[in-house]
Amino acid sequence: MSAPALDLLGIGNAIVDVLARADDAFLEARNLTKGAMRLIGAEEAERLYAEMGPGVESSGGSAANTCAVAASLGARVGFLGKVADDQLGRVFAHDIRASGVDYPTRPLPDGAAPTARCLILVTPDGQRTMNTHLGACVHFSAADVDEAVVAAAAITYLEGYLFDPPAAQAAFYAASRAAHRAGRRVALTLSDPFCVQRHRQAFRRFVREEADILFANEAELLSLYETDNIAAAIRLVRGEVALAVLTRSERGSIVLTEEEAHEVPARPVKVVDTTGAGDAYAAGFLAALGRGLPLPECGRWGTLAASEAISHFGARPQADLKALVGAGAGGVSGLLG
Amino acid sequence: MSAPALDLLGIGNAIVDVLARADDAFLEARNLTKGAMRLIGAEEAERLYAEMGPGVESSGGSAANTCAVAASLGARVGFLGKVADDQLGRVFAHDIRASGVDYPTRPLPDGAAPTARCLILVTPDGQRTMNTHLGACVHFSAADVDEAVVAAAAITYLEGYLFDPPAAQAAFYAASRAAHRAGRRVALTLSDPFCVQRHRQAFRRFVREEADILFANEAELLSLYETDNIAAAIRLVRGEVALAVLTRSERGSIVLTEEEAHEVPARPVKVVDTTGAGDAYAAGFLAALGRGLPLPECGRWGTLAASEAISHFGARPQADLKALVGAGAGGVSGLLG
Repeated sequence: MSAPALDLLGIGNAIVDVLARADDAFLEARNLTKGAMRLIGAEEAERLYAEMGPGVESSGGSAANTCAVAASLGARVGFLGKVADDQLGRVFAHDIRASGVDYPTRPLPDGAAPTARCLILVTPDGQRTMNTHLGACVHFSAADVDEAVVAAAAITYLEGYLFDPPAAQAAFYAASRAAHRAGRRVALTLSDPFCVQRHRQAFRRFVREEADILFANEAELLSLYETDNIAAAIRLVRGEVALAVLTRSERGSIVLTEEEAHEVPARPVKVVDTTGAGDAYAAGFLAALGRGLPLPECGRWGTLAASEAISHFGARPQADLKALVGAGAGGVSGLLG
Repeated sequence: MSAPALDLLGIGNAIVDVLARADDAFLEARNLTKGAMRLIGAEEAERLYAEMGPGVESSGGSAANTCAVAASLGARVGFLGKVADDQLGRVFAHDIRASGVDYPTRPLPDGAAPTARCLILVTPDGQRTMNTHLGACVHFSAADVDEAVVAAAAITYLEGYLFDPPAAQAAFYAASRAAHRAGRRVALTLSDPFCVQRHRQAFRRFVREEADILFANEAELLSLYETDNIAAAIRLVRGEVALAVLTRSERGSIVLTEEEAHEVPARPVKVVDTTGAGDAYAAGFLAALGRGLPLPECGRWGTLAASEAISHFGARPQADLKALVGAGAGGVSGLLG
């Protein structure tokens, strides 16, 4: 087994976010569940966009956000995900590459389906409600997973949202098996309680059989195990996954292995927009894990990255994250060299 | 002469901004003049974009920004400017309409030229350096100026940048003459000292013969009159334009008529990004003028709108501008009704 060329390979939906401010009445009038992600078709995407306020476009996608943040923390990162060969696809590809992430996936030829968009409504309380039109993402398949790239990454990180596009489940398993054949680890984030509900049996099987590292918040973990008892859910996940990380918003996070449990406090910060908070947490955690830092320190990096994400509008970082976590430039360039 | 249906009709380049942070060394290595706007071709736009950091897309364009801000202050506003029938063109059209601005211009059919982009590099001091690929804007012509729409607006507002695309000068004169035939006023902003330098004789003639209201900063006014004496430039402009507004960054602004001169202090604020500051000033000023407020109050509205613009990343407003200027909801809805 050779040393990995990448600390992290993310696989997920390649999405451009359209963020707009909205009030609670706007959500209520459309029966939108605050804080959740739902899938919408092309027509509904057009209709909702027409009704939304003026927007700001920014590259998004859960695993893609994680990759961009991890790269900004000095990790060596790659990403696989499908855009179309259109203007927004070029925006996505530019941004992830400009963040320092290797992005080899070939775009879908123009015309078949547009680059995915997520219409994100940010309410005055900082909560985000996401409406995703998957577009080109439904064409992501096992053929897009290069086994050599997976084998070169210490950790392959998969977003739960990728259970939604039908061909992507095969890609998940192809990636996971390639990673394990190469002696690497596989991480999964549950992404969203409703996504877990849509694909519960597929999630349960993947968590049990493939995942070495799991990220989830409380609602997602309860949905996975169909329980309202968080202690029971924690017992179950510790029996199934070697390393599980439970994020709890303002109550911090808990890092769990079979033998250890570390509580990590949250960092008080003014909530502007929670878009990308979970993605940033995973990025900080995995970037620290890739540097061989102890688990409580991984939790601290995750917390700092998440607190930066919720302090501004949009999912991608705006601050100098290396300075925030106190990663010395020397150590980081050592990793990059 | 009937009462105007619009307080303001803006005519300008229809542009999507791509904002990214850059350091001074990035500008120096490319010989870019900080704070200025320059025009670039398609190839250079591709090259610069590839070299830039991750971006945020947001609708822009000088007069279009002014229109969006004025509408958010309760003014009844229209805008004319050319996008292509592509993804970024649909973003531009969505955003300006979602801001409450009437936008009747038909897009250029897809394929002829893409929607204009402005690659904006924001340095740590908050200054913005703009690189514009005009794309579809060069196809804006007198045929896009509906005389009835111009006649319905109390003030037609033209951006100096529109001297760059060749067919737009004819559109300028068509609009200005239609406005004056209907007994309305014409406002112009000089936009940029280098733009003035590129088209000085055209600017001089338009200021002398057509403009009733002029917005300029000191560098632009000095460039217009080819002098380094600001007092001399002020004397010249007062002799040529009924109402001139000189903006002076942190030193505030001066409102000038033949008889009056009002100094308006700046509002101290942390400078995050100066993109759109001048556009926002003009919007505040013109929105107040449309409500019949006295000139010093118009300057105060301009100052408040500009201070909001420079306190965040991007040109379009993020705060409740009506509350900022203290415009009561009743008065505003009275205007809108």
